[in-house]
Amino acid sequence: MTTYEIIKKKRDGASLTDSEITYFIEEYLNGGICDYQMSALLMAIYFNGMDDREISSLTKVMADSGEKISLGELYDITVDKHSTGGVGDKTTLVVAPVVASLGCVVAKMSGRGLGFTGGTVDKLSAIPGYRVDMCGKEFLSTVKRIGISVVSQSDNLTPADKKIYALRDTTATVESIPLIASSIMSKKLATGSKSIVLDVKYGSGAFMKDILKAELLAQKMVNIGKSANRNMAAVLTNMDKPLGFAIGNNLEVIEAIEVLKGEMISDLYEECVALSATMVSLAKKIPVSEAEAIVMDSIRNGAALDKFKEWISTQGGDISYIDNTDKFEKAKYIVEVYSNDTGYVNSMNTEQIGFCASLSGAGRSRYEDSIDFAAGLILDKKTGDFVNKGDRLCCLHTNNKSIIEEVKDRYVRAIELSNKKPETSKTIYKTIW
Amino acid sequence: MTTYEIIKKKRDGASLTDSEITYFIEEYLNGGICDYQMSALLMAIYFNGMDDREISSLTKVMADSGEKISLGELYDITVDKHSTGGVGDKTTLVVAPVVASLGCVVAKMSGRGLGFTGGTVDKLSAIPGYRVDMCGKEFLSTVKRIGISVVSQSDNLTPADKKIYALRDTTATVESIPLIASSIMSKKLATGSKSIVLDVKYGSGAFMKDILKAELLAQKMVNIGKSANRNMAAVLTNMDKPLGFAIGNNLEVIEAIEVLKGEMISDLYEECVALSATMVSLAKKIPVSEAEAIVMDSIRNGAALDKFKEWISTQGGDISYIDNTDKFEKAKYIVEVYSNDTGYVNSMNTEQIGFCASLSGAGRSRYEDSIDFAAGLILDKKTGDFVNKGDRLCCLHTNNKSIIEEVKDRYVRAIELSNKKPETSKTIYKTIW
Repeated sequence: MTTYEIIKKKRDGASLTDSEITYFIEEYLNGGICDYQMSALLMAIYFNGMDDREISSLTKVMADSGEKISLGELYDITVDKHSTGGVGDKTTLVVAPVVASLGCVVAKMSGRGLGFTGGTVDKLSAIPGYRVDMCGKEFLSTVKRIGISVVSQSDNLTPADKKIYALRDTTATVESIPLIASSIMSKKLATGSKSIVLDVKYGSGAFMKDILKAELLAQKMVNIGKSANRNMAAVLTNMDKPLGFAIGNNLEVIEAIEVLKGEMISDLYEECVALSATMVSLAKKIPVSEAEAIVMDSIRNGAALDKFKEWISTQGGDISYIDNTDKFEKAKYIVEVYSNDTGYVNSMNTEQIGFCASLSGAGRSRYEDSIDFAAGLILDKKTGDFVNKGDRLCCLHTNNKSIIEEVKDRYVRAIELSNKKPETSKTIYKTIW
Repeated sequence: MTTYEIIKKKRDGASLTDSEITYFIEEYLNGGICDYQMSALLMAIYFNGMDDREISSLTKVMADSGEKISLGELYDITVDKHSTGGVGDKTTLVVAPVVASLGCVVAKMSGRGLGFTGGTVDKLSAIPGYRVDMCGKEFLSTVKRIGISVVSQSDNLTPADKKIYALRDTTATVESIPLIASSIMSKKLATGSKSIVLDVKYGSGAFMKDILKAELLAQKMVNIGKSANRNMAAVLTNMDKPLGFAIGNNLEVIEAIEVLKGEMISDLYEECVALSATMVSLAKKIPVSEAEAIVMDSIRNGAALDKFKEWISTQGGDISYIDNTDKFEKAKYIVEVYSNDTGYVNSMNTEQIGFCASLSGAGRSRYEDSIDFAAGLILDKKTGDFVNKGDRLCCLHTNNKSIIEEVKDRYVRAIELSNKKPETSKTIYKTIW
């Protein structure tokens, strides 16, 4: 079967065999298949989809295309987490030390972020001294010694996914469930944890606006993982409003520390508990209710915070910033944004709020761009809250004076008020096992 | 609007504006848009189609992308013909001199063929001395002097179509009606004739097996031409059996000469008359029945043959081959193929028969390959004919001994016999004006 015939077969709606998928991906990586043939196949997949066997096969070939992390005798208690991304999502900073404090092993590789704020490794970089780049050997020895390490994703991981993703990004083939699922899961399989919990977000601030599509994506990823013998669960979480109150790198780290200190009970706390409990349940093979109890205990009794400090200091971070979060650098301008009207917050355009954070300097649109760690937003009011005219809606933190008026204007327009108190939507919609 | 957004717009089923189409094609030709983005757009067009305005716009941009032939004061009586291609199709060799003998002007650029046999310029090259390559100036002066010239397509014609076609050919995006229609029509518009007749074939030996798809393609091309102010007609012709009895370059030239000499009344003659009459009717604005009468006259009274000789000799061809077709070189092996059975020929697998001709040496699969002018087939029996066991089905002409057994075997299997005389299908299905 030739390259042409494989594209034609998918174009005509048929299912590709494992060997056709392997041939196509391997030849693409070797240069035997050109970008323009891959992009034609990707567009055909966009239209005709892939069945579960095809998706698993594609994921496996991509996972096997580069370096693979092996966690040896720790394998059975290793657990990883992936979020499809949202505004204000700093859960990794909380759940990783929580589950590690309970004897699970977290060996996590994370990406830098494009978009509204940084990714997990950007947020960790906001802690002075923290080293996100480690060689594989140091990464593994840290994991073995203290049960936790989070580093920047190795350049040698899943090169096929990297090459294909770059192409999807310029050919309008990103929004395809088989392609999203296989891209995410190939990285998860290559980093080698036995248990994997997926945080799949839906709503106005998520990549997947539609709950049904998010559920389908979650189910596909769970299927892929199971077919590769992993313990799998996906938690569907709401992103119709930002998660927690802080958006921006320093600000989010501070908020995560507050959760770990047990000082903040919020939707962020609730989601961190749910994700941690799901991870512990999978890795330790205990009921999720039992897992939830020990997770909350670990926060309450300080074990999670201690593990957090041990982890951060092991990777070079200055833990005096954890003890005293006032040490984090502040932005030059801290501007209060007020409501022009009175009513209940009926909805928040979360994508717009993310864009406001990005304008403030908290995000980047190209990997080469730098991030302003101090920039971002602290929200005062969220969906369901009552607001009087003149009440503060949020504080904008920025070092860039020129964007202040635009952000204020955009932020106010992103908040929709109503006379009636809206029904509150659940933070956790459901868990797929 | 960016490249990405244009691909996404078509992927999502929307109609592209004229300026989006112009931008995409021009930037692609300039190198500002990459092959992989074009192939993604082509696949999206394959799935979501294009409306008539989009197709006309795409055609115009491609037609304008390179050299354009201007036929000056002759424009009103210029007429061109295009065939979507079939097995045994040598109609251009007949219709071009017929209509030129009636005062129409034929300034035709033709392609070399890929596939079963050569294209029109390959067939013309079979006449010793005939020059298919002429500079634009000589081409135009020939047209002005004798009212007819057929040359190889200029390298500078429709470079956008050329670049896109090459990409479609390796990305399984050939079989798309908007892309086929715009590709064909861009070349027709660039070569500048006022009237254009399309011979759109359907059936087992045609690119379009399905009559409804062929009709749709014909209608789209007629619409494109009309929106560019051309006189348009499309003739839908049957390709469930080869056209005429000869397949292969020398053999087809000889058959065309027989038609021009009035010695052969067959489906080929019938189709040549219909196409010529449609061309004359458009160019001279006379009823098609009247055009048909003068077309048949021109063959009967020798005017068409005289014009053929004038044309061939003007382009350097040796017309003694026309007077005495026995001068054409014969293949080393002329092998008779017999029927194993008795019955009516119920159907002919015309694609297989074309493949037999190609195996004999009459075709090429890459433009670099050479063609054996003497190779091919002469058919004895066609659909509807009665065959006794041991009757000759065809004569195979080849210089390649090694393929003889395979061709005999394939040929016999391509002929399906039946006890019942099949209904004969019409050569001309319909004409779209």
